[in-house]
Amino acid sequence: MDQTPAIIDLRSDTVSKPTPAMREAMARAEVGDDCYGDDPSVIALEAQVAERLGKAAALFVPTGTMANQLAVSGQTRPGEAIGCVAEAHVQVHEDAAHARISGVQACSLGNRRGFEPADLEARIREESCGWPRLSLAWMENTLGLAGGRLWPLESMTAIGELAHRHGRRVHLDGARLWNAHVATGVPLAELAGPADSVTVCMSKGLGCPAGSLLVGDAELIAGARGTRHAFGGSMRQAGVLAAAGLHALEHHIDRLADDHRRARRLWDGLRALDCWRAVEPETNMAIFELEAGRDAEQLCAPLREAGVLCYPNKYSEIRLVVHLGIDDAAVEAVIERARRVLA
Amino acid sequence: MDQTPAIIDLRSDTVSKPTPAMREAMARAEVGDDCYGDDPSVIALEAQVAERLGKAAALFVPTGTMANQLAVSGQTRPGEAIGCVAEAHVQVHEDAAHARISGVQACSLGNRRGFEPADLEARIREESCGWPRLSLAWMENTLGLAGGRLWPLESMTAIGELAHRHGRRVHLDGARLWNAHVATGVPLAELAGPADSVTVCMSKGLGCPAGSLLVGDAELIAGARGTRHAFGGSMRQAGVLAAAGLHALEHHIDRLADDHRRARRLWDGLRALDCWRAVEPETNMAIFELEAGRDAEQLCAPLREAGVLCYPNKYSEIRLVVHLGIDDAAVEAVIERARRVLA
Amino acid sequence: MDQTPAIIDLRSDTVSKPTPAMREAMARAEVGDDCYGDDPSVIALEAQVAERLGKAAALFVPTGTMANQLAVSGQTRPGEAIGCVAEAHVQVHEDAAHARISGVQACSLGNRRGFEPADLEARIREESCGWPRLSLAWMENTLGLAGGRLWPLESMTAIGELAHRHGRRVHLDGARLWNAHVATGVPLAELAGPADSVTVCMSKGLGCPAGSLLVGDAELIAGARGTRHAFGGSMRQAGVLAAAGLHALEHHIDRLADDHRRARRLWDGLRALDCWRAVEPETNMAIFELEAGRDAEQLCAPLREAGVLCYPNKYSEIRLVVHLGIDDAAVEAVIERARRVLA
Amino acid sequence: MDQTPAIIDLRSDTVSKPTPAMREAMARAEVGDDCYGDDPSVIALEAQVAERLGKAAALFVPTGTMANQLAVSGQTRPGEAIGCVAEAHVQVHEDAAHARISGVQACSLGNRRGFEPADLEARIREESCGWPRLSLAWMENTLGLAGGRLWPLESMTAIGELAHRHGRRVHLDGARLWNAHVATGVPLAELAGPADSVTVCMSKGLGCPAGSLLVGDAELIAGARGTRHAFGGSMRQAGVLAAAGLHALEHHIDRLADDHRRARRLWDGLRALDCWRAVEPETNMAIFELEAGRDAEQLCAPLREAGVLCYPNKYSEIRLVVHLGIDDAAVEAVIERARRVLA
Repeated sequence: MDQTPAIIDLRSDTVSKPTPAMREAMARAEVGDDCYGDDPSVIALEAQVAERLGKAAALFVPTGTMANQLAVSGQTRPGEAIGCVAEAHVQVHEDAAHARISGVQACSLGNRRGFEPADLEARIREESCGWPRLSLAWMENTLGLAGGRLWPLESMTAIGELAHRHGRRVHLDGARLWNAHVATGVPLAELAGPADSVTVCMSKGLGCPAGSLLVGDAELIAGARGTRHAFGGSMRQAGVLAAAGLHALEHHIDRLADDHRRARRLWDGLRALDCWRAVEPETNMAIFELEAGRDAEQLCAPLREAGVLCYPNKYSEIRLVVHLGIDDAAVEAVIERARRVLA
Repeated sequence: MDQTPAIIDLRSDTVSKPTPAMREAMARAEVGDDCYGDDPSVIALEAQVAERLGKAAALFVPTGTMANQLAVSGQTRPGEAIGCVAEAHVQVHEDAAHARISGVQACSLGNRRGFEPADLEARIREESCGWPRLSLAWMENTLGLAGGRLWPLESMTAIGELAHRHGRRVHLDGARLWNAHVATGVPLAELAGPADSVTVCMSKGLGCPAGSLLVGDAELIAGARGTRHAFGGSMRQAGVLAAAGLHALEHHIDRLADDHRRARRLWDGLRALDCWRAVEPETNMAIFELEAGRDAEQLCAPLREAGVLCYPNKYSEIRLVVHLGIDDAAVEAVIERARRVLA
Repeated sequence: MDQTPAIIDLRSDTVSKPTPAMREAMARAEVGDDCYGDDPSVIALEAQVAERLGKAAALFVPTGTMANQLAVSGQTRPGEAIGCVAEAHVQVHEDAAHARISGVQACSLGNRRGFEPADLEARIREESCGWPRLSLAWMENTLGLAGGRLWPLESMTAIGELAHRHGRRVHLDGARLWNAHVATGVPLAELAGPADSVTVCMSKGLGCPAGSLLVGDAELIAGARGTRHAFGGSMRQAGVLAAAGLHALEHHIDRLADDHRRARRLWDGLRALDCWRAVEPETNMAIFELEAGRDAEQLCAPLREAGVLCYPNKYSEIRLVVHLGIDDAAVEAVIERARRVLA
Repeated sequence: MDQTPAIIDLRSDTVSKPTPAMREAMARAEVGDDCYGDDPSVIALEAQVAERLGKAAALFVPTGTMANQLAVSGQTRPGEAIGCVAEAHVQVHEDAAHARISGVQACSLGNRRGFEPADLEARIREESCGWPRLSLAWMENTLGLAGGRLWPLESMTAIGELAHRHGRRVHLDGARLWNAHVATGVPLAELAGPADSVTVCMSKGLGCPAGSLLVGDAELIAGARGTRHAFGGSMRQAGVLAAAGLHALEHHIDRLADDHRRARRLWDGLRALDCWRAVEPETNMAIFELEAGRDAEQLCAPLREAGVLCYPNKYSEIRLVVHLGIDDAAVEAVIERARRVLA
């Protein structure tokens, strides 16, 4: 008899709920009015995250989108460009906020697996022919839409060096940088090293209810603190959320290795199905590609009916995302159910 | 011997900390991923606030500024105008976000105590001479910068009727509408009646750590839900904050009467000082006006040293704001300390 | 028998048509591609205007609105404020472009006759209380909506000094600065002296078909040259328009004294009518104020039928504007016709 | 002995100067204040262009960039997307104005030779996965950066049908649509048929000093007329420029065939040089591609010294553009000089 839950939710690692211990930490949180700089939990979280990433300062904000948009706003001027992959979160999943709020355009480089220094250099060269100045090179690690793919450190380092040589800034959308750190064993500060600013999310793999941070140098973060107010992100006793983050930093990083192992198990258990092509996971997501132009929703629907919640990653792709609410038994149940309804 | 705390914080009603009972409610909160519409606490709070205000729908957001800016974004087009008092929160304390994000200008009407239908009508008339269309009439109740002053219901009603007759929308920045409701006894739905959209804050007088709501018709709120994502305000398990709001709706509204009584006591106890002119409070703030051009910080500094935290409301004004962290004894201590250092 | 034209157009000084001599100058103009810096007539006009105004550089643009908006864009950052009178052209007649394009808000100072250094200083003081930074003080001389009123040099000088002492920039919307120069006898460079940037129009009193200039320091103008392209204002052989400007600089400045004399004659001839209150002209416009709330269009309509074209200046005001297409006989005819239909 | 001019300017077809007959037409132009709708030459040009393109209305503006940006502004909302080739003029040569002014992002489709209906359909499909709404499909004919390449009518038609089936609008940047018309023999109205809005320029192949038009349905153009004012493009007696356009419509369209023949002769005369790969021209431009990463300026410099002005089209490409200032002798001279200095 199936002891697993009726519903197993693999739509995203954002669906995980706070653990009892995390709730306990939130309930005990020391707080103050963070708009006046008085919240000790927020201050502690900002300091710890900045230190782990090897940067001078950090700012706690409601979402990763706001952290990313503060990075855009603080490191570009209206009429300039950011350079990122065509399927970067900032290009496809932030509702054109970079254009809407900061008046900059996004310029696509490379492909969905990243871009290379040569791509960036070729784009910068065109500025002598009148193209808008690319003031911010933008990497994403892990690459969410590419299925949690890792951006190699050497590539990030080379891109950072090239950008800086041309006087450009570098941002790293590290919403899932924790996963990259655990998957590669490279220290966070080393992964963050090539970038001037970094976004990290507490609400994805780390399992917090909400909250992200923008990390960078003191001047950038001071400016972002002011702009956060205009963007509607300056909460008061935000320490109740920051306390969850402090708890997660201590308890939820190493366990990401379990998520990675389980994502791989999903891939292995479902790769034989001939309704899709399974992409070998590098972190906590398994991607299944359908024939081009085929609607992935047609597979998501029967999976949902079988108690496996998932979303199309793209129109012709499905992603299954593992998180702290998914244990080994749930993974096996997903494999069993998917085989049953999709075979 | 003085049994009151060494530090009494009257800078704003935003400084109040969650009570133990509120923390307990947060720790027990049922949650889900609100970006997928799965958070039952958020859904319950949105429903309750919408119902109390007599509107169809509500949206939970991190801050009152975001609620206000969603109201602007959803009810104007770039190049249009909103009409509000010169010292409205949206004009002076949101870092020009209405211009920066939505591309509209703010047009000043009336004075710091509000505006009248005639002011609005005169402004609308000028549109025949080429002035930008004023698409959104904007009221604020209570008026924060005017010291928590009430906007009379008849005036709000007349403004709403006039605006609607001209095909304009009406917003009510009701960050402290709870105070207006308790001070006047007028039901919330009646106060909200003239407006198409209303902002209410849970983090001011109601004592929640964070969170505001935009309330209005179903179409406006559906649109705002999408735009909230672009603005970086779509949190995941936001139910931990919404649960505080649900608790506050039940337990923290009626008690605002105590705040109002105490603000009045502050005024009465300090009006005789000749360093300022005390303005009789209508809700939870006492304003003390200095001679024009005199720096209020010169009075705030000795008050701070005496353990009374306060801020200049404007350059030549001080405000003392009462909230659920301030009891009668604290009020008497403030009076005693202020008399001592300012006499 | 009336020898004057059937239609006398006093709607604005923008309605004047190029004289035969000006057309001749345009037909002969040396031109080149101004986007490549190759148009000798544009270069000459920019140099002459910059020199007359005592500034380092100038940029030719299609309209005064574009010159003003380049001044905003180049001297503010999104989220900041400009400070001007409530009825400044930039606030009421540029369709909120400062908000829409540059993301700044306009903050009203003083009244329709201008503002004083004390007004600006009071506003700047409030920044310590969180108001948006007023980065650009904005004067207009002559004040169009106030009927071509002069802004006294001493006031402009004091405002400029105050602004600079606080590290702010100063713009002068001098669309009709030529009129101020002729009316006061003060040299243009002296009038422009207090400002960092100045807009002048060739298409109003000077009688050119189109074209304005933004004047200022070399860095500002270099930046504006780039932004002009994004704003859609970089024309190619613009020398055909610039040649009209060069002609006007030589032939159409001194003659503004005739316009001023004639505007005064209009005022004197029509002040006795009891349908309005006539405002004594200072330059080339006569303003007639109706009772508040009365629709000026009700007087414009019969005037139009009598062959006198005019517009409401505001809803309850009429303005008659004199320009190079209006001679003494036309002025007398206007007086006669207006007396006839309005008495 | 070389009878050709010392300097032959092939940088762009924008460098051409008005002919004596065109200057004569301008000098004789009937004009009025176009902001009041009073300029008969502008009215005539707008009517003729609208009719030739088979649309209801047209609007005269200073530049093609402004026409394009009015198309964006009038057919999108902030936060949406336009879909065009990566090297469209609107993406690389308008300083990100679509983002800066209208808050939309540009999404790249296809390659530099255009995109296909399948590309557009694939992009629209992703909207079910949260990508920003692509509200405006954007074609360019001829494709400037691709060397004046033609966009096949069948492709344009299929794209238009697909876009309309999905409820999207379609814009055609036809800055050089005149060239496409002459090169293909397809009537202008047929080329414009698939699009809701079209930009045409008078200042490129048609040889006018300045001016472009946005063409479309009556509602779009009425809105654009208002927005043109905010963008700083509402000139007064613009008829002096429009008269050049009227002249060009009559005299300068058919002669584009000469430009096309001459561009082809340039290609044929220079294709044998081994410093580049010559692209066979389809209209009035010849493109010469260098090895990737090689700086085209290194070839432009000696050409300039030999009296042949040209610009890099991209960092590693040179373009030679033929226009009405270039006759057969000039073409032969360019070939001779280029062979001499580049062989």
